Amino acid sequence: MIPNVLAERYATAPMKAVWSPEGKIRLERELWVAVMKAQRDLGLDIPQEAIDAYEGVIDQIDPASIDARERTTRHDVKARIEEFCNLAGHEQIHKGMTSRDLTENVEQLQTYRALGVIQTKVGAALLRLSKLAEEKRDLVITARTHNVAAQITTFGKRFSMFGEELMLAFQELNTLLANYPVRGLKGAVGSQLDQFSLFEGDANKVLDLEQRVSQHLGIPKLFTNVGQVYPRSLDHQVVSILTRLSAGPSSFCTTLRIMAGHELASEGFAKGQVGSSAMPHKMNSRSCERVNGFNTLLNGYLTMAGGLAGDQWNEGDVSCSVVRRVMLPDAFFALDGLLETFLTILDQMEFYPDVIDKENRHYLPFLLSTTIMMKAVKAGAGRETAHEVIKEHAVAAARAYRTGESTGNDMIARLAGDDRLGLTSAQLDECLQEGASALGAIDVQIDAFLRTVADAVSGLPDAQAYSPGSIL
Amino acid sequence: MIPNVLAERYATAPMKAVWSPEGKIRLERELWVAVMKAQRDLGLDIPQEAIDAYEGVIDQIDPASIDARERTTRHDVKARIEEFCNLAGHEQIHKGMTSRDLTENVEQLQTYRALGVIQTKVGAALLRLSKLAEEKRDLVITARTHNVAAQITTFGKRFSMFGEELMLAFQELNTLLANYPVRGLKGAVGSQLDQFSLFEGDANKVLDLEQRVSQHLGIPKLFTNVGQVYPRSLDHQVVSILTRLSAGPSSFCTTLRIMAGHELASEGFAKGQVGSSAMPHKMNSRSCERVNGFNTLLNGYLTMAGGLAGDQWNEGDVSCSVVRRVMLPDAFFALDGLLETFLTILDQMEFYPDVIDKENRHYLPFLLSTTIMMKAVKAGAGRETAHEVIKEHAVAAARAYRTGESTGNDMIARLAGDDRLGLTSAQLDECLQEGASALGAIDVQIDAFLRTVADAVSGLPDAQAYSPGSIL
Amino acid sequence: MIPNVLAERYATAPMKAVWSPEGKIRLERELWVAVMKAQRDLGLDIPQEAIDAYEGVIDQIDPASIDARERTTRHDVKARIEEFCNLAGHEQIHKGMTSRDLTENVEQLQTYRALGVIQTKVGAALLRLSKLAEEKRDLVITARTHNVAAQITTFGKRFSMFGEELMLAFQELNTLLANYPVRGLKGAVGSQLDQFSLFEGDANKVLDLEQRVSQHLGIPKLFTNVGQVYPRSLDHQVVSILTRLSAGPSSFCTTLRIMAGHELASEGFAKGQVGSSAMPHKMNSRSCERVNGFNTLLNGYLTMAGGLAGDQWNEGDVSCSVVRRVMLPDAFFALDGLLETFLTILDQMEFYPDVIDKENRHYLPFLLSTTIMMKAVKAGAGRETAHEVIKEHAVAAARAYRTGESTGNDMIARLAGDDRLGLTSAQLDECLQEGASALGAIDVQIDAFLRTVADAVSGLPDAQAYSPGSIL
Amino acid sequence: MIPNVLAERYATAPMKAVWSPEGKIRLERELWVAVMKAQRDLGLDIPQEAIDAYEGVIDQIDPASIDARERTTRHDVKARIEEFCNLAGHEQIHKGMTSRDLTENVEQLQTYRALGVIQTKVGAALLRLSKLAEEKRDLVITARTHNVAAQITTFGKRFSMFGEELMLAFQELNTLLANYPVRGLKGAVGSQLDQFSLFEGDANKVLDLEQRVSQHLGIPKLFTNVGQVYPRSLDHQVVSILTRLSAGPSSFCTTLRIMAGHELASEGFAKGQVGSSAMPHKMNSRSCERVNGFNTLLNGYLTMAGGLAGDQWNEGDVSCSVVRRVMLPDAFFALDGLLETFLTILDQMEFYPDVIDKENRHYLPFLLSTTIMMKAVKAGAGRETAHEVIKEHAVAAARAYRTGESTGNDMIARLAGDDRLGLTSAQLDECLQEGASALGAIDVQIDAFLRTVADAVSGLPDAQAYSPGSIL
Repeated sequence: MIPNVLAERYATAPMKAVWSPEGKIRLERELWVAVMKAQRDLGLDIPQEAIDAYEGVIDQIDPASIDARERTTRHDVKARIEEFCNLAGHEQIHKGMTSRDLTENVEQLQTYRALGVIQTKVGAALLRLSKLAEEKRDLVITARTHNVAAQITTFGKRFSMFGEELMLAFQELNTLLANYPVRGLKGAVGSQLDQFSLFEGDANKVLDLEQRVSQHLGIPKLFTNVGQVYPRSLDHQVVSILTRLSAGPSSFCTTLRIMAGHELASEGFAKGQVGSSAMPHKMNSRSCERVNGFNTLLNGYLTMAGGLAGDQWNEGDVSCSVVRRVMLPDAFFALDGLLETFLTILDQMEFYPDVIDKENRHYLPFLLSTTIMMKAVKAGAGRETAHEVIKEHAVAAARAYRTGESTGNDMIARLAGDDRLGLTSAQLDECLQEGASALGAIDVQIDAFLRTVADAVSGLPDAQAYSPGSIL
Repeated sequence: MIPNVLAERYATAPMKAVWSPEGKIRLERELWVAVMKAQRDLGLDIPQEAIDAYEGVIDQIDPASIDARERTTRHDVKARIEEFCNLAGHEQIHKGMTSRDLTENVEQLQTYRALGVIQTKVGAALLRLSKLAEEKRDLVITARTHNVAAQITTFGKRFSMFGEELMLAFQELNTLLANYPVRGLKGAVGSQLDQFSLFEGDANKVLDLEQRVSQHLGIPKLFTNVGQVYPRSLDHQVVSILTRLSAGPSSFCTTLRIMAGHELASEGFAKGQVGSSAMPHKMNSRSCERVNGFNTLLNGYLTMAGGLAGDQWNEGDVSCSVVRRVMLPDAFFALDGLLETFLTILDQMEFYPDVIDKENRHYLPFLLSTTIMMKAVKAGAGRETAHEVIKEHAVAAARAYRTGESTGNDMIARLAGDDRLGLTSAQLDECLQEGASALGAIDVQIDAFLRTVADAVSGLPDAQAYSPGSIL
Repeated sequence: MIPNVLAERYATAPMKAVWSPEGKIRLERELWVAVMKAQRDLGLDIPQEAIDAYEGVIDQIDPASIDARERTTRHDVKARIEEFCNLAGHEQIHKGMTSRDLTENVEQLQTYRALGVIQTKVGAALLRLSKLAEEKRDLVITARTHNVAAQITTFGKRFSMFGEELMLAFQELNTLLANYPVRGLKGAVGSQLDQFSLFEGDANKVLDLEQRVSQHLGIPKLFTNVGQVYPRSLDHQVVSILTRLSAGPSSFCTTLRIMAGHELASEGFAKGQVGSSAMPHKMNSRSCERVNGFNTLLNGYLTMAGGLAGDQWNEGDVSCSVVRRVMLPDAFFALDGLLETFLTILDQMEFYPDVIDKENRHYLPFLLSTTIMMKAVKAGAGRETAHEVIKEHAVAAARAYRTGESTGNDMIARLAGDDRLGLTSAQLDECLQEGASALGAIDVQIDAFLRTVADAVSGLPDAQAYSPGSIL
Repeated sequence: MIPNVLAERYATAPMKAVWSPEGKIRLERELWVAVMKAQRDLGLDIPQEAIDAYEGVIDQIDPASIDARERTTRHDVKARIEEFCNLAGHEQIHKGMTSRDLTENVEQLQTYRALGVIQTKVGAALLRLSKLAEEKRDLVITARTHNVAAQITTFGKRFSMFGEELMLAFQELNTLLANYPVRGLKGAVGSQLDQFSLFEGDANKVLDLEQRVSQHLGIPKLFTNVGQVYPRSLDHQVVSILTRLSAGPSSFCTTLRIMAGHELASEGFAKGQVGSSAMPHKMNSRSCERVNGFNTLLNGYLTMAGGLAGDQWNEGDVSCSVVRRVMLPDAFFALDGLLETFLTILDQMEFYPDVIDKENRHYLPFLLSTTIMMKAVKAGAGRETAHEVIKEHAVAAARAYRTGESTGNDMIARLAGDDRLGLTSAQLDECLQEGASALGAIDVQIDAFLRTVADAVSGLPDAQAYSPGSIL
């Protein structure tokens, strides 16, 4: 059998449990039994012995037998009805139901539970980012824009920066979990006609039945006006949130790949790990790269979701079927794998303060070019003039270093000799000294991030306890 | 000049106003002045005369002059600073600011206002769907699944069905508008260092300044930990919601295209309108098709957004610049055009009850196959047997009609003659008669939809008053 | 284990064989042995006994053992090297090779072979389309544009129309198969340094070695300048062609879904098949819908490919790894499933000439509106006038039918009474009679299609012999 | 008016000329006249005076007047027919034509000409890559995989590596240009019925007419079996090739952004250019980033194309219309802008051999780890043992450097002291010395690239002469 590589290679047991074929059959049977009991309680004549018989065989799951049935009927649900009835020796399930009364609800339940698994792991990731933001709050690094030394920041701030992006998506996830609507028992075209017929037109019983099903599923809301299928833009919303949950980690990992290229930090390299079969010295950012790969996958699954939403005909059809069979579990497996990898990186990453410091020192005059400019302005230079003069010398200093004319960054010396700027060598040195630890609002910002995370995960004990397993 | 075809051909004035190049320059200048005033109020030495001078030239917008400057500096913001300063005869703006302190906030403001324009139109669309759901609540139509006659529904229910999908996305939009965070004045790498320097390290003033900017913009929330740029997953969220807002209308329009193919309803055909230059009889669903086209465009813009989110390096760069210049306005223009077209369709669509009735009568025995089956079960038949027997005769009736053996649908006659089912001809006729108006929970469902819409738009007078302009 | 649903539910044995994990391990081992033999033949000291030992254990494939090794090394290739060496009791494989010398070539071989499987099936599909175009060449149907009756066409022409689209992509596929370049043994960064070292700097031996590897693989061309990995735009080309191969079938199936809604034709309904578990009468276009679903999947895989191409760093990395593990096989499984489904539809579809004829007769006056217009012009009317008059009466006739004023299409009677047009009732009748079988260039066009297909598949005996298996 | 930002900000005059609204109207009128003349030559009674009249007003293009007409007819082609006829004072154009006989052919002509513009620029880019590959053939740089120092390569090889990717797409482009099929005059549903009627059923005249149109357009091939519209998978092919043409440049630019971060090379920084309005020292890779942005845009346009191909109904409709109005020109503008930017980068980029050399020297022991391993194996060590020992010391050397224990890379000293490897200090030194210039097959590879480019552009004088304009 060809395995699902995302599930088997990257995803974790709780996520696989949600989407396993056997697990799905079990969820379906539980739903059938729940409906049957509710129908009986509401007055349908269903013998207790039948219910008992069905309950007794819920766990007798034989995919091969079901497959064989499907090859004849060419109808997957019909095959599973037959199988379950045959095992139980009764014909009492699926009353007044259409296939989608079963499958839509069960697939939504899988989606809902999978979102719960994700919530735990994102919470765990936020906690780690928060912890690292705190720990590295003062570790000054060279911030880069356009991948070029820009100003000073701290490693802690970088964690909180990418953490804030993850938090944004986390809040979306929480909102979704609180408002996710399930389709319910709407019947063949959405009118609930067949349950109406069953209950002799008693609307209250039909609504009561649906409430009981909703309660069985544990999903907070119910659609009211769907047709045979629920709107696929709900799936689109789910997958789009999964994609956004991948964005912060992915950008962080891209940044860590760049930092590793400068030997400022790395994702770590485990004992026994091999970097390259050919080049013994290699220590690669393979986990970070993998995170980027998962992000790319998620973008593709979102394109699939976009091909469904907005292309639904009438009361529904199954042109979405094969897409959702693939897209939903695979998108969740991908994000599950991403989070597992990301957590591992956060737990195992290494910091190289000496190299960081070497870089900071080399670039310091550049990193403070704005500060110098503002000092010059205060000392009387025009802003545009100061900008032009500093630019001139910064560019010259960079060129001198790059062409081997100078061995280091001599911008300060150049500036000191230019009276258009009006700053003495002493003033410039003072500027450097003060500037090397001037962190602006970083402390305040990090504090805000820590508080936000603490609030966000306070009700999630599983997130607080979670540790990733060992990844491939 | 090559025009933006989405803006010029399909979008409306309010949306174009948000994104016009001149409008953007004005927003930038207003932001600069707002920052300047706030800096002055918080203690910076900025002469009133300079502020007056800048305010006096805000509307002197000369794109050609700015372009000429940009060709030298190769820096768009620098060109606009120079232009504004030159006009005002001062050098007081942009203090302690980096380009992104200007552009990110202004682009977010454009996005935020554009979301507001969309909110109005979606509200207007929901109101129309709600009105049509009410009006056509009892107009029985043949519901189709797999594009094949399934059961009875009503046209009103179809409106509420697609309306519920639109409502789902509308709620997302409202949540976004309530929580949208703006970047603020975070400086070159996010540390707010330069404002700190300006205010001699007084953190309170820096935070106060940012609050004033936020208030000037009128956006509810502030990011706290961004770098030079805000996380592009926020743009992704915006575009993904735009895409989902297009889904319900697009599926509705696809369905209306199919209905028009059966002459059950149409989008209307205006006086003087030409359907085809070659075929004089043509009355095409061109507006519906256009709605589908806009949906396809939005999927593409979302792919672009997906290429940005998760691929941000360090504290930021401009690899997203050209993408956002195109994707953001164009996605909004596309949805604006879609909604304008959709509103027009809802206002002008036509219903053909006679053809609808003809279809219903032809398919009625099929539409009630479940009801017949359930009646048979009550009368003593096994569910699987009844299903099999009805399937057999339904298939035979369909084939007879398709091969010209019969001129209509003779399924009832066939069933009456089969004692496996156990229903007499009279019982079957009764079934048909009762079934033709058995609408299940449709009334209750539509009522729920009407209430939801009424609540959702109660605070939106613009939506209530909105009428689309004339579309191409 | 979670199965790959595309592989297990929809794909066929030959495609699964290409991508099975065990199959891949075998291909790798065969490549290692081929390289080893070539290295020996070119002068490296590799004992025959080692080669024999490796060859003797090629089929001893134990995924669990390899997995265990990978959990330590965190390096998949290293794990497979160790396993193979351990089984053979030698350390002679992978000399001068980097992991990518193995994996890139083997994955390209899988891709190339999978393209071959696709070629066969597309050839088979073209043959069926060609056969149906021939058989239904004269079956007149109502052509629709904008889903509204337009002019006359034939069912045969529809087959050749969608067939021509498939042919376009087939030619792309054939061009790709003739030009597909394989990466070869380029070493760790593309310089082939390690093979150079092995052969003491003898360039000819290095090139000879690579030629032998290329020959072993059976792929026509070799890259010359790659780095560690080959450019991912080649994968993008592959997936984009797969996507285009899905377009013609998908549009055909959409059209067949619409036709089935009018009962003009259907995909067929097998004995024992169940359409709906709730509605016994349902005969659904489920296979057609599935084809559309596969097309949607392929669009998503192409988005993934787009996330790789253009985002490669330096000489290479593995941010593409997880993406390609999923995207490549799954895109092929999806197209394989699509083609299998499409072939089944073409083999089993049904035609309902009586319903077709009924539709033709109803719409005939409309279908000939251009012909009538041109006749009127010849008789002296202005083109624009004739267009306007016919439009007026066509619209009126449609409205009369739709509102129940008339029971059929009375356009001809209306036209006969309008002397602006200048055509008598007799002339109009003649027009109808002649027009009902006026097929323009359709015969010539179909002939051209038949010839093109015959040429294209003449060298593909497998395609000629191919029949789809039984689908779910 | 809102301008098309891609056209106005980034694209060049020849590309804008292809897609300008006025240019399109002119192409349409030329096609109408060409058809009219051909119809006359083949026997239709069209007065020369009418033809003259039309030709006389071809350049009287008044978009506002056409727009006004369209607002009534809601039919764009009808509006343009009326305008042209009104200007000419005749009603002789568009005979036997449907709108798509005009628009499809003209849009394909635009596409075809735009492909030609691209061909020239890609040819120019290949020539530059080839020249740089030659010039920098011996400039040794540190090749990186996983963004970590791997082995030695040369800058010239990097140019040829990315150049080979561009060449791959260039060959696709050339194949497309040689095989691109135009729709021709197929009439309302593809049967060419109306031309048949015009020519009294004379098939030869109809085919002759179409050949003349094809010749007028200058496009090599004709579709034979299309319906009202040509298959949108042809647009998909076009956009997918544009996307792939962007891949090589985009990956190159990403790599240059990384190199600029290490100050090894840069895209150049023009006199007067400003890097940052806040930080005077900034010299940013803004052009490279822009190239990446264009690549992201193209991926989005391809998603749009994917939404059209495979979703065509019957003989055609206009759900693709708004998509193609945007996607086709914008995709071409994006690639045009990308190529212009890329050419500028190639012309202006700077190389910093001193920094390059510094990096090489620091990493040399790592870069030669494979060479050392192979030497050790020759000297008697087992491959796996040698790999393990070198890995151990390489990792230790890296850690020592990163933690400040050592100031440089002391791996060689560590290896010399480990007798498991069996190499003396002298042997290791020799290894370093020889290895520093051991370039494997790079020379041979670059030669191959130069030849391929020379062949590919030999017939393209425009490409050889092309220089980019000044970019923003």
